[in-house]
Amino acid sequence: MIKKYVYGTPFETEAVMMEIENAEGTPEYGKVCCEQKFCFEYEMSNKDMIFGLGQSNRGINKRGYIYISNCTDDPEHTEHKTSLYGAHNFIVISGEKNFGLFVDYPSTVCFDIGYTHSDKLKIECEYCDVTLYVIEGENAYDIVKQFRKLIGQSYIPPKFAFGYAQSRWGYKTKQDYREVAREYRKNHIPIDMIYMDIDYMQDFKDFTLNEQNFDDFEEFVKEMKQNNLRLIPIIDAGVKIEKGYSVYEEGVKNNYFCKKEDGSDFVAAVWPDDTHFPDVLNKEARKWFGSKYKILTDKGIEGFWNDMNEPAIFYTPEGIERIKKSMKEFIEKNPSKDDVWFMRDSLLYLANNPQDYCAFYHNVNGQKIRHDKVHNLYGYNMTRAAAEGLQEIDNNRRYLLFSRSSYIGMHRYGGIWTGDNMSWWSHILLNIKMMPSLNMCGFLYIGADIGGFGADTTRELLLRWLAFGIFTPLMRNHSANGTRRQECYQFEKIEAFQHVIKIRYRLIPYIYSEYMKAALQYDMYFKPLLFVYQNDEIAREIEDQLLIGNEIMIAPVYTQNAKGRCVYLPEEMMMLKFLSNGTIHTEQYEKGYHYIAIELDEVVLFVKKGCCIPIAEPAEYVEQIDTKNMKLYGYINSEYLLYDDDGITKQYQQQNYKTMKYE
Amino acid sequence: MIKKYVYGTPFETEAVMMEIENAEGTPEYGKVCCEQKFCFEYEMSNKDMIFGLGQSNRGINKRGYIYISNCTDDPEHTEHKTSLYGAHNFIVISGEKNFGLFVDYPSTVCFDIGYTHSDKLKIECEYCDVTLYVIEGENAYDIVKQFRKLIGQSYIPPKFAFGYAQSRWGYKTKQDYREVAREYRKNHIPIDMIYMDIDYMQDFKDFTLNEQNFDDFEEFVKEMKQNNLRLIPIIDAGVKIEKGYSVYEEGVKNNYFCKKEDGSDFVAAVWPDDTHFPDVLNKEARKWFGSKYKILTDKGIEGFWNDMNEPAIFYTPEGIERIKKSMKEFIEKNPSKDDVWFMRDSLLYLANNPQDYCAFYHNVNGQKIRHDKVHNLYGYNMTRAAAEGLQEIDNNRRYLLFSRSSYIGMHRYGGIWTGDNMSWWSHILLNIKMMPSLNMCGFLYIGADIGGFGADTTRELLLRWLAFGIFTPLMRNHSANGTRRQECYQFEKIEAFQHVIKIRYRLIPYIYSEYMKAALQYDMYFKPLLFVYQNDEIAREIEDQLLIGNEIMIAPVYTQNAKGRCVYLPEEMMMLKFLSNGTIHTEQYEKGYHYIAIELDEVVLFVKKGCCIPIAEPAEYVEQIDTKNMKLYGYINSEYLLYDDDGITKQYQQQNYKTMKYE
Repeated sequence: MIKKYVYGTPFETEAVMMEIENAEGTPEYGKVCCEQKFCFEYEMSNKDMIFGLGQSNRGINKRGYIYISNCTDDPEHTEHKTSLYGAHNFIVISGEKNFGLFVDYPSTVCFDIGYTHSDKLKIECEYCDVTLYVIEGENAYDIVKQFRKLIGQSYIPPKFAFGYAQSRWGYKTKQDYREVAREYRKNHIPIDMIYMDIDYMQDFKDFTLNEQNFDDFEEFVKEMKQNNLRLIPIIDAGVKIEKGYSVYEEGVKNNYFCKKEDGSDFVAAVWPDDTHFPDVLNKEARKWFGSKYKILTDKGIEGFWNDMNEPAIFYTPEGIERIKKSMKEFIEKNPSKDDVWFMRDSLLYLANNPQDYCAFYHNVNGQKIRHDKVHNLYGYNMTRAAAEGLQEIDNNRRYLLFSRSSYIGMHRYGGIWTGDNMSWWSHILLNIKMMPSLNMCGFLYIGADIGGFGADTTRELLLRWLAFGIFTPLMRNHSANGTRRQECYQFEKIEAFQHVIKIRYRLIPYIYSEYMKAALQYDMYFKPLLFVYQNDEIAREIEDQLLIGNEIMIAPVYTQNAKGRCVYLPEEMMMLKFLSNGTIHTEQYEKGYHYIAIELDEVVLFVKKGCCIPIAEPAEYVEQIDTKNMKLYGYINSEYLLYDDDGITKQYQQQNYKTMKYE
Repeated sequence: MIKKYVYGTPFETEAVMMEIENAEGTPEYGKVCCEQKFCFEYEMSNKDMIFGLGQSNRGINKRGYIYISNCTDDPEHTEHKTSLYGAHNFIVISGEKNFGLFVDYPSTVCFDIGYTHSDKLKIECEYCDVTLYVIEGENAYDIVKQFRKLIGQSYIPPKFAFGYAQSRWGYKTKQDYREVAREYRKNHIPIDMIYMDIDYMQDFKDFTLNEQNFDDFEEFVKEMKQNNLRLIPIIDAGVKIEKGYSVYEEGVKNNYFCKKEDGSDFVAAVWPDDTHFPDVLNKEARKWFGSKYKILTDKGIEGFWNDMNEPAIFYTPEGIERIKKSMKEFIEKNPSKDDVWFMRDSLLYLANNPQDYCAFYHNVNGQKIRHDKVHNLYGYNMTRAAAEGLQEIDNNRRYLLFSRSSYIGMHRYGGIWTGDNMSWWSHILLNIKMMPSLNMCGFLYIGADIGGFGADTTRELLLRWLAFGIFTPLMRNHSANGTRRQECYQFEKIEAFQHVIKIRYRLIPYIYSEYMKAALQYDMYFKPLLFVYQNDEIAREIEDQLLIGNEIMIAPVYTQNAKGRCVYLPEEMMMLKFLSNGTIHTEQYEKGYHYIAIELDEVVLFVKKGCCIPIAEPAEYVEQIDTKNMKLYGYINSEYLLYDDDGITKQYQQQNYKTMKYE
């Protein structure tokens, strides 16, 4: 049961797809106050657990901290950070009572979930213009499934997007890409995609190609495709200010960029130095910006990642003027430590400064809306622009598309990657914990930068991260310029990487099948254990094991120097251990704790009691996977319902399902 | 067996206490090269584990990363940081072969322990003036004990220092301290000490008191003592430059400060803005600086913490000049993003800039030594100054003394706290892992800032951290100015804090006894499980459980929202659960994994098979502990050897031991 309460005059975010009548009265859970601010308060019982919030920090159970929905480009995801790139305002309260809340509000929302006071849940928005959806259900899982229907079907990528991908900020020339291709193929490490980070563009101009390095890009795309590799370029939010650059010129001419109070185009420095932001909340501008993707699809490109779309701001001309003024005063002084720190902080806070987000406007159906009031919708609508543009090209074709910033609603248009993480062991764990929360909020095509984006990785960290990454729909190794190189072939004993990534390809039929079922049936691909084993007191607390689809449980290793780990089985299960010689060792384990030895080049998963899964022979790219010759593993006399299709059109018919019997 | 190899002309650090003849030839393990650089290389076998490095990042097994001994004031202890505040160049290689290495070298040492290549250990120093001690032994534990004898007996604090302490940067007035005292006593939360951070001083001048706030300090110290509370002031390294300030004047007159190349006193800004650094490597200057502590002991003070002694530098006048020059150029420009980042980074790198550490000199027995070549000895010698000064006052009396920066050798003069950590759950785990490594390097009186220094804590985090902190000799709740207040009485349901901290006091007889045995017998107070259960393959990997003394094992909860945790018992043990009603529940568990429920206000420990421990009745301060009426808990028909003494003199006689029988 879903009830919709409308307070004030909410901005239409288009997050919700279902028509629901406004409810009368007040929600039967908690207390809403709506004077100047919107506020929802609820007294949590001792056993209440809180789920949701998608891409947010900390655990699967969100209780015990404070989270602020305010899309932010912050590459230091340390524990006390309250805002990341996305704004996913859906939570589930599960315990004494069971209900979900979706706070449909496009600006900052604060969720204090037992931080200020252990037992108090408090949600606040600055203005009382909010649509609040209250979802009643039997349990957390049931509530999530209702919510997922409310917000509509999740994005489905083409099947090649389930392959492994290599990326790095810093690849510049065709030679750089050819080296990646050559080394992967030479070492027989399966791969389907190479991502193109910002340096492929001419001076970071969207929809351009570096003239010197990519003279015949169409030919190069073909060359890669012949090697069964797809190139996936990045698109940034800001459009470079440069006379003669057509995207810039068109945007200015047609008033497609965000404007300042005085009507001039707003200027913000990002990668190309000064840029304008396309006003993707303006339907016409969105259509225009989306149509630009065709420049690259015309050259054979089949997928994109949208970046810097919080939108990130390095600084503005106004910020530079303020800094220069402070510098002049500083120079005249014999500065104290406070003066020095003031200057340091002023320079640090040039980036993503709230003052700048209040200095520009969108044109929404003719209405001038100040950016900060709809801030969390920018990345969503940039990606919507792309999705709609790509749909224009071929309505029956799937393109790969994902974004850094997002809001609920964007899950229909693309996936997300979880942004600029670090080469930290704790970020494997954060990756594990974030996945089911994102599924709750509709985001299915998801993954983190495997190996870690910032800081220097190690061979062991990368191998363990890959062994988890095998199970994330988006499986990409990505790293920042200036950090240690982390393509698999950069390390000793390369065969370990080959072993681990091959297992991904053996599992793709299962992963794809379960992904498609989750997408088509409003279900979760990643589930916390307690969503299924609801009465198991130990399983309730476990956040470092996950259910993947309906048949398997995983327990990734995420600590340095471990030769294995303790795994909790909430019921008897069949362990499959993929040994480095290519064979699969199976062993049945009873309910309870077990120490499972897992070498660096091995992968372990557990098939649920009475279930089986299909496993293909190894392949080096997705199209090579032989789905005709798969073996079933798990419990004898069980069945598996396989979904499969052509992987590129949108024909998701009933006949795509097939029952496989393990006899 | 310990062999000493001397390369070049090493600086005499006085880390080692034993006279050992120089060995001939080369070490039989690994390969030493000594051209311009010193370098030691060793091929690690698959099973080799590496221990040691004291206060360094990451796990107990140091394999798989790179660690750089370079005392650094860095408050962001994220996973990829390679240098913290201490330089503890002792490692143990344990596996195929077993040996220890102590690289006695006072400047930067790099330990690449399987980072660049998984199997290669490489130690490097910039110059080949190194004393290398190679210790052969049966196993890691044996090697550690030999090393501990080599470096001499660890510091022993007075018994009151085993009480609980409250601290916060930001207490300014007597009222602030009285409030802490009143609230703790009112709520019957045991406490022995309140720490005084920098604001007690007049303008951050060492050995002064704020004139307005502490007019009759001696009287105030008495007032607190009557309430069974001791005030423990901070002493910073830098001496404020201020005409008329006697410490400054004396230092300048006698050439006791570090000097620049040109012979003038080196200037660095720290808390008091411009300061000079006492040249604690100069014996006379050290004696002079140490004698100043008497100014405060004369007022009744019995303990100190030495801070900012890496030494931390906020900036230097030379740095400011460089910045001003850059600013002038910046102002004239239409800056690019690179210009903006250059300015930002220049301001960030004003602090602790390597250039500045090369710009001043020590006078060591008449020789001018550039600071960077002996950088890691500064905190050590500042604390040695204090210890020697305090010894001058009363040679038979123990004072509380600990430091932020340290080098091996300093363990004889004081303890350390682990510096500016954060209110992160991962920092409880880092705290757990760091403790045994510090013990290996001689540091016994140790602890972290409970609740976390930086960032905002939560009630749950603080309670769980306290429940581990109960077992650290130094047990202090400390937080930074501007963060959420985290004195126990700031949270709801204060009684939970009372319960947890009372358990510390019930355990002090055991903790003190085990501490004293470890100190007097060159043993470890914190041991990793594998040091005792050497053949247990599961115990080998466990880094989130520790042995405390000889009788108990702990398994702290360090995750949010946990109602307990999985504990691995390497043998049958007796669990003691301290319930919130003051009773102790005992239950025997078999070897293996167990889920142990542990409420937020409970503490659990495990008594080893065949052992027992004494537990006292609750007390509200150390002197109130009734050691005459203790009960033994654990296995019947076992014995406990209790060490106890007057807690203040240095009479550590044999008759202080007493056998207690549990019949």
